[in-house]
Amino acid sequence: MEFQDVVRKRKMVRSFEDRPIPHESVERILANARRAPSAGFSQGWGFLVLEGKQEAARYWDALWPADRRADWGWPDLFNAPLLIVCLSNKTQYLRRYAEPDKGWTDMDARRWPVPYWDIDTGMAALLMLLTAVDAGLGAVFFGVFDQAKLRATFAIPDEYTAVGVIAVGYPKPTDRPSPSLKRGHRAAAEVVRRGNWH
Amino acid sequence: MEFQDVVRKRKMVRSFEDRPIPHESVERILANARRAPSAGFSQGWGFLVLEGKQEAARYWDALWPADRRADWGWPDLFNAPLLIVCLSNKTQYLRRYAEPDKGWTDMDARRWPVPYWDIDTGMAALLMLLTAVDAGLGAVFFGVFDQAKLRATFAIPDEYTAVGVIAVGYPKPTDRPSPSLKRGHRAAAEVVRRGNWH
Repeated sequence: MEFQDVVRKRKMVRSFEDRPIPHESVERILANARRAPSAGFSQGWGFLVLEGKQEAARYWDALWPADRRADWGWPDLFNAPLLIVCLSNKTQYLRRYAEPDKGWTDMDARRWPVPYWDIDTGMAALLMLLTAVDAGLGAVFFGVFDQAKLRATFAIPDEYTAVGVIAVGYPKPTDRPSPSLKRGHRAAAEVVRRGNWH
Repeated sequence: MEFQDVVRKRKMVRSFEDRPIPHESVERILANARRAPSAGFSQGWGFLVLEGKQEAARYWDALWPADRRADWGWPDLFNAPLLIVCLSNKTQYLRRYAEPDKGWTDMDARRWPVPYWDIDTGMAALLMLLTAVDAGLGAVFFGVFDQAKLRATFAIPDEYTAVGVIAVGYPKPTDRPSPSLKRGHRAAAEVVRRGNWH
């Protein structure tokens, strides 16, 4: 698909058909995640793949208790045949920047103006969301609030933090957009400034 | 350009020709930034546009002192006819999530497992990097270490933090890749895990 069409068509999809997606799409999504840029080429990230509705059910059972699922407005989210947990690893960035070419041997996180471990992992997540659209699929990105439960459920080391989870599948035509979109875009003049902020 | 070609061709470009880029490319890059996803559609971001080498010089003069520029291995970086400072606004996220549909009226940042203000702004930055490739241009993303100086130079309110700056232009054929790339990709088996981490 044309790049600009992918950007235009990308939206968060929360209702999926109850059927698998091609395994080659899963692999292309993951390959593109690994093409994301990262500070110092640290690549301090990890992608935990839960392929198939049965595997994904382990995530829902552990992280979305039954009462939360019952209250959730998009029950067909749980049909998603693919979940990818996007994890950032701050320690790998601190280690990378302690190497001679960077020289931050104190590994002091206060040197970092913003957390590139989370930002770079977010860029990888966006590449996956876009690749899903290019593959004729839909996807959504959502946060993980119980990081300890996530680590315990999937034996993830403490140095990884989930930046979010991507669910992928064939979109259901009955999917509804997030009510948040009714807010509309912030005005261009508020967001885009020229020369100076004011 | 085909989406997958854009992803494949994207790389950080640090040497630019000394000539302007079409204004319509600038506008498409900015329009795509505003299409990035954001938690609760908060859009807590800002993009400060410095168009033309003269405008960009204000950035270099303030943020890259002459001695740093002299030591920098890619002198044609300073030819870039477009800089976009990508700013995140945490307060706008806290305010958005204090609204009735979210209900975090205490505006306590500890509710957030990861800083989506920085992550979402990073996603917008990646969309701009990809759009530059689609427009036949090259681009690089780099960090801002003196946030106070940045704010003072461009009259940016304190609630904004620069996640990074994108420089865009026509790539010089003589551009050299970052030495960090010699590290190579982390092994797929290290980064991509299936079912469980171990």
